[in-house]
Amino acid sequence: MGDTLGLDLPSKKQRLRKDYAYRLDYRTRWADNDMFHHLNNPIYGVLIDSIINDFLIKECGYNMHSYPRTALVASTYCDYFGSVAYPSMLDVGLRVVKLGNNSVTYECGIFEEDQEQVKAVGGFTQIYHRTECGVDAHERV
Amino acid sequence: MGDTLGLDLPSKKQRLRKDYAYRLDYRTRWADNDMFHHLNNPIYGVLIDSIINDFLIKECGYNMHSYPRTALVASTYCDYFGSVAYPSMLDVGLRVVKLGNNSVTYECGIFEEDQEQVKAVGGFTQIYHRTECGVDAHERV
Amino acid sequence: MGDTLGLDLPSKKQRLRKDYAYRLDYRTRWADNDMFHHLNNPIYGVLIDSIINDFLIKECGYNMHSYPRTALVASTYCDYFGSVAYPSMLDVGLRVVKLGNNSVTYECGIFEEDQEQVKAVGGFTQIYHRTECGVDAHERV
Amino acid sequence: MGDTLGLDLPSKKQRLRKDYAYRLDYRTRWADNDMFHHLNNPIYGVLIDSIINDFLIKECGYNMHSYPRTALVASTYCDYFGSVAYPSMLDVGLRVVKLGNNSVTYECGIFEEDQEQVKAVGGFTQIYHRTECGVDAHERV
Repeated sequence: MGDTLGLDLPSKKQRLRKDYAYRLDYRTRWADNDMFHHLNNPIYGVLIDSIINDFLIKECGYNMHSYPRTALVASTYCDYFGSVAYPSMLDVGLRVVKLGNNSVTYECGIFEEDQEQVKAVGGFTQIYHRTECGVDAHERV
Repeated sequence: MGDTLGLDLPSKKQRLRKDYAYRLDYRTRWADNDMFHHLNNPIYGVLIDSIINDFLIKECGYNMHSYPRTALVASTYCDYFGSVAYPSMLDVGLRVVKLGNNSVTYECGIFEEDQEQVKAVGGFTQIYHRTECGVDAHERV
Repeated sequence: MGDTLGLDLPSKKQRLRKDYAYRLDYRTRWADNDMFHHLNNPIYGVLIDSIINDFLIKECGYNMHSYPRTALVASTYCDYFGSVAYPSMLDVGLRVVKLGNNSVTYECGIFEEDQEQVKAVGGFTQIYHRTECGVDAHERV
Repeated sequence: MGDTLGLDLPSKKQRLRKDYAYRLDYRTRWADNDMFHHLNNPIYGVLIDSIINDFLIKECGYNMHSYPRTALVASTYCDYFGSVAYPSMLDVGLRVVKLGNNSVTYECGIFEEDQEQVKAVGGFTQIYHRTECGVDAHERV
């Protein structure tokens, strides 16, 4: 990825689906909604974990069974620009924001089906040993 | 539905996708797996709640915002015949097992994409006022 | 336990705290409530899994890391008699309903702090190799 | 609270229980653990939501039923310094980091019973109408 730093990206609130190379759709569930009938905030974190690990498993040869847990999540973050609710389909996109010598910062955009406006942008920074997952794979995101 | 009682159905373990008229696919999430790398049992209940309410909303005019909570779940059940795990896509099917004067018993079958063998069969019995959701809608499931 | 079959117990709806020998309190969480401001049904299953495994770890020497997953849950069930909601403290009780040669059926009662009436009674049946967890431990529940 | 900005606090990694005026204990649950046998990251967000709303309900007269949803969470964050796992008891502490004219930033520290080292520090920023929750209440945290 030429622009891992995202320096020429619009602000988070203006993210578009095309800013994310790896994308999956997730059907929302009854239990995702909170008492206000909108997605509970930690569910965004669940979706972020899900697409990042899906990418690592399918594109980086990551194996949850045989790998030691050497990649630690140091911090998580999420900014909210709109609400989504069950029942709906969500489009989640993934990109690498920063790829350092021993850390990687992911960013995910969460969109609702048929709506252009991004609903939330979040991700996490993971400390890892670079040999665990080839830079090549990350550079494709 | 002619066979709401399921009297001529094979045993639960032999349920097929075609035994369920209403079906939705759900992408599994990282947090669905338990320490043994298989779907945590309560997640089956989450999927069951999700497809039943999806059906009620889309086919019965059920509105989560304006309805009083007059339909109470009296009991839930689930039988497990195999395990599923993130990352995967699940096919969930819904049928009405029994439609009484003031209660309805739903049954859901949970299948993994590209596998014929049903993984789990569960559902719940709900006590309700019949006028809330037309029998016609239920009879289509 | 002299009465593993529970033959002389009152019906589920009349269960009392004293019917359960092993008890733990659980503080409810914001995300436990559903759109109707009551505990989401699968959360009862989460609490049931939690107290049963807590008992197995502390009283039976069960080790989640070194044990193979040889004890399979065959079925889960729960009957609901009242609702609970965040914020609150719950008292969860555990007893063995049936201890067979290669299976055990657990029952949990879920109570709200300072209320006598049981809110839900549920549990699961697990297929296992008897040597994994001594009968002695189970008989104490 | 004299130090809502936390300017004289040690860095997050050195937070102590006494840095938080409002505290609650939460028993972990089986489903909290991820495949690596440690608390799933979004569960920290669940605990953060739970203690903040508990405080708002008990100390600010916040009523989840009658209030319109006018207080929106704009962003969430969490830094991780150690891992915790089921089964365990967690101590969660709450303080106000910043109280603006129409926003409040909360910080929570998550500790494991009998351990001094903080495991995670996270929170969220909420946009609200100041009259909803008196400054007095917040100033006590």
